[in-house]
Amino acid sequence: MKRYLGIDIGGTTTKFGLFCENGQLEEKWEQKTRIGDNGVHIIPDIAAAAAEKMEELKKRNREIVAAGMGIPGPMNDAGYVERCVNLNWNNCAPAAGLERLLSIPVFAGNDANVAALGEQWQGAGKDFRNVFLITLGTGVGGGMIADGRIVNGRGGMAGEIGHVSVNPDEVLRCNCGNRGCLDQMASATGIVRNALRLLEQSEEDSVLRTVAHPSARDVADAASAGDALALAALDYCFGFLGKALSIVSHVSGPDLFIIGGGVSGMGELLIRLVERHYRQNMYLSADYAEIRLATLGNDAGIYGAARMAMQNSGV
Amino acid sequence: MKRYLGIDIGGTTTKFGLFCENGQLEEKWEQKTRIGDNGVHIIPDIAAAAAEKMEELKKRNREIVAAGMGIPGPMNDAGYVERCVNLNWNNCAPAAGLERLLSIPVFAGNDANVAALGEQWQGAGKDFRNVFLITLGTGVGGGMIADGRIVNGRGGMAGEIGHVSVNPDEVLRCNCGNRGCLDQMASATGIVRNALRLLEQSEEDSVLRTVAHPSARDVADAASAGDALALAALDYCFGFLGKALSIVSHVSGPDLFIIGGGVSGMGELLIRLVERHYRQNMYLSADYAEIRLATLGNDAGIYGAARMAMQNSGV
Repeated sequence: MKRYLGIDIGGTTTKFGLFCENGQLEEKWEQKTRIGDNGVHIIPDIAAAAAEKMEELKKRNREIVAAGMGIPGPMNDAGYVERCVNLNWNNCAPAAGLERLLSIPVFAGNDANVAALGEQWQGAGKDFRNVFLITLGTGVGGGMIADGRIVNGRGGMAGEIGHVSVNPDEVLRCNCGNRGCLDQMASATGIVRNALRLLEQSEEDSVLRTVAHPSARDVADAASAGDALALAALDYCFGFLGKALSIVSHVSGPDLFIIGGGVSGMGELLIRLVERHYRQNMYLSADYAEIRLATLGNDAGIYGAARMAMQNSGV
Repeated sequence: MKRYLGIDIGGTTTKFGLFCENGQLEEKWEQKTRIGDNGVHIIPDIAAAAAEKMEELKKRNREIVAAGMGIPGPMNDAGYVERCVNLNWNNCAPAAGLERLLSIPVFAGNDANVAALGEQWQGAGKDFRNVFLITLGTGVGGGMIADGRIVNGRGGMAGEIGHVSVNPDEVLRCNCGNRGCLDQMASATGIVRNALRLLEQSEEDSVLRTVAHPSARDVADAASAGDALALAALDYCFGFLGKALSIVSHVSGPDLFIIGGGVSGMGELLIRLVERHYRQNMYLSADYAEIRLATLGNDAGIYGAARMAMQNSGV
């Protein structure tokens, strides 16, 4: 019986998932990612783990026929990685390397794109073919799925909504060099920065004044508990996210937005704030896209990687 | 021998094109669009012209096997038109109507999307699968082609780049109700408005001061002839267009931008100005999309409509 292996390579751990064709996750495990020595151990380590699993499965009459990998950085359409700072990689072709070691077809993609595919396949986007995922973590990432497939885009740029400039009043520069990027506003870092700025500018009472180094979670918790200043900070930050979603609607018109990443842990409060701002920025049509929370959490990557293997291997 | 009919319905004239499978335009003609009586004559008039051509072709052993139509307004994925102000239509399904009268498969789409498909198929985008068309005319429209097919988007919104807000300093409202839309900056109307504003604000000499009611063409001609103020006005307007293209790159990452519509008549000057601003706004990747002028002119619509018929009819 056919199985597909989904691999999600992170800077600290590499996750593995074994999938049936119907999308069922049968088994998952992880191992440390050894990023030393310019990351030369990463692919052999993955190959060793995969080969062991393949042996074990063979005894049970099951066969891994293809594998997919999510990589934490940009890669071009040909699978070539110029530079991946999280893994210390320079000028390599990871899928081709793993393919040589395992003798099965292997496909690789950017991890945000792969996670988007996972959510569209078996997560919040199950009922939709055209989906745009935004991940709110330390930074803001994203991925675009059109007709059920990853859109990579020229230079791997599709889905890079975190670096659309949405705040013309921002004076600080983003890591990318531009000013006012969504990344500066709606990431965990951005939420904390804007909450601290608001605390400094206002005299208003807030529970956040009693926290030494508030996190985005602290801001969210305070807002949920009714703290007006914390809520104002979130509303300010998510106003830019709503604006960004309206921009995406005017470019590619997805049916569904999925919001994932650590910040999405604040749940319905986030959806409520973003949805209001998104709709306020939609002047041409009232046929709004839906906005949902991601449901696969940290497993989105292995789901999407397996799906990519399934779609591209033809086996 | 199979032929495909491409139809481009405008508020004044309806254009027809007869196409071979290889993309060759064999014949084209047009007739007046009768928009009176709530537009009830439009589809029967088209059917009469098409039926006559089908009869004539039959004698030469040629057969129109499917037709496509571009409509100047939004329609949903099911082909339903809620309202099309240019044709006085309300609540109709034009493709289904024509299909009943002609007994061949008929497909309809928004005219900007259909023109984008035409340019991708046989125009400036011939060598590309992922293309974004921007039309600069009285307003700013657009269409997105992914993997060689039209992306319609939720509520027909894909490609509506004209209503992305790109100028935070704009004080006037766009027709859509928002402020600072690309439509207000880079349309023919927008170019004239901004040139007049610049004339008013500066004391600088300009040939435009001698023109009673300058058109966008006058601004372009003056700029080409070395008029510094006219060039500054164009540079200002196309700065926002360059910014808009960088936004599109961060969302869907096309390989090629095609610029069409009346304003694109100013040619290489336009490309030069837009390209500079586009690249200045791309911080994440230097793998820039190409920017080209449209090549099919007013025929883009009939090309795209025929292509749509070919792709969707399966005959």
